[in-house]
Amino acid sequence: METAQLISEIKRKKSFLCVGLDTDMDKIPAHLLKEEDPIFEFNKAIIDATQAHCVAYKPNIAFYEAYGIPGWKSLQRTMDYLNTNYPEQFTIADAKRGDIGNTSTRYAKAFFETLHFDSITIAPYMGRDSVEPFLAFEDKHTILLALTSNPGAFDLQTKSVGNSQLYKEVLKVSTNYKNAERLMYVVGATKAEYLAEIRTIVPNSFLLVPGIGAQGGSLEEVCRFGMTKDVGLLVNSSRGILYASNERDFASVAKQKAIELQLQMKEQMEKL
Amino acid sequence: METAQLISEIKRKKSFLCVGLDTDMDKIPAHLLKEEDPIFEFNKAIIDATQAHCVAYKPNIAFYEAYGIPGWKSLQRTMDYLNTNYPEQFTIADAKRGDIGNTSTRYAKAFFETLHFDSITIAPYMGRDSVEPFLAFEDKHTILLALTSNPGAFDLQTKSVGNSQLYKEVLKVSTNYKNAERLMYVVGATKAEYLAEIRTIVPNSFLLVPGIGAQGGSLEEVCRFGMTKDVGLLVNSSRGILYASNERDFASVAKQKAIELQLQMKEQMEKL
Repeated sequence: METAQLISEIKRKKSFLCVGLDTDMDKIPAHLLKEEDPIFEFNKAIIDATQAHCVAYKPNIAFYEAYGIPGWKSLQRTMDYLNTNYPEQFTIADAKRGDIGNTSTRYAKAFFETLHFDSITIAPYMGRDSVEPFLAFEDKHTILLALTSNPGAFDLQTKSVGNSQLYKEVLKVSTNYKNAERLMYVVGATKAEYLAEIRTIVPNSFLLVPGIGAQGGSLEEVCRFGMTKDVGLLVNSSRGILYASNERDFASVAKQKAIELQLQMKEQMEKL
Repeated sequence: METAQLISEIKRKKSFLCVGLDTDMDKIPAHLLKEEDPIFEFNKAIIDATQAHCVAYKPNIAFYEAYGIPGWKSLQRTMDYLNTNYPEQFTIADAKRGDIGNTSTRYAKAFFETLHFDSITIAPYMGRDSVEPFLAFEDKHTILLALTSNPGAFDLQTKSVGNSQLYKEVLKVSTNYKNAERLMYVVGATKAEYLAEIRTIVPNSFLLVPGIGAQGGSLEEVCRFGMTKDVGLLVNSSRGILYASNERDFASVAKQKAIELQLQMKEQMEKL
């Protein structure tokens, strides 16, 4: 998907909500467990219920990989369902991959070609030749970890590097990568106070912001410091939507939660 | 596998060779392509031919993931074959995963429990709570990226951090992680000159060293600076062994290449 199409969807729906599909067999409603593919059935119901209110879906790949081959089948079916029924949705493989050149190309093929994702999250530690193989794919997007939402983010990401800090160095060096216009960045909502500085380095790039809700970040703060004229944000919610109910009404409760967030987003967009 | 068992295998075989299973359909002998599962048949032949001369196998997960579900099936069959027939081999999932806590636990389950690997490579960027979920598994090992063998390693890993450099900071902070005794580290053979300094920070830890041969690193230098009294090294070769021939004799040529490396390793071990 081209960035222009993503922006146009955001403006049309007045939403920059990304629904994280962290689908966990231990948390989904019990009645689904007798289905042949409970993970897919859960995802399908969540997608049908929330798609009018969000612009992106982000399967967390670990949750599928943990179940082995059946998990990969559920992921493939989820992606086929999304791409067939809601091709206007931006899809994110939250995979945090990254390796030397020829290996990164393999990961890129896995997610962009085999599974038909629009984008993938990538760890920056191995540098340019670990990221550029992903950037080589046209109309695909590479979402580089900059400042993550977890406590361990302070272990390395905020360490001083010269006059700067590691996460800023990641942002800076990445802007020189080939096809850097296909980059987006992960910035945790719990680090909203850093967004103003981040915007001085990457003023227009899309930021994928996890950590609203369950992890404690504030939407209002994220928007105040991070929003651009084209919004430039995808704010993710996973558990707060998926597991708002674990009864038979889970999809309609998820829809209500998505609407609540979408209305808050609309309010923020009206300030633009 | 316990570290003591790995050390005992290294001493018994006079080898610290790890064979990287970067199995690529475009490079394997043409006659295998008519098999039902060419990747598994290739791996099986390579394993049978080389197992007497190496102590570890390292499937590069991207190469399997790129083929989608059939690729994961080949990986599962390869791991079942290894664990059934050669349980004394140390197995490494070269996966370079890492995410926030509950997600890292999922990746750990995928590789340690579903696929029964002994160890996994992990990217350090997200810090403590992204690594410790892997370290929580008993008799399993977490191999943290420190200094990789690719050119992009200089983008971030060697950046000055205070009086130190990022890769040293990674080593230092990781030694305080819970269950740090289960840590090993990736140090590229192309960076052998850094090994003396690395050994001042992690004097006894096992180092997984890729980049011998195809990527240009020297075994002799790696051993001079990196070897401990218990060897403390796993040196990987992938392409140099796997694709030494792409004819019907590929397995016996691979065996010869493995023996060549093993004899060089024996010579280095005799200096201990």
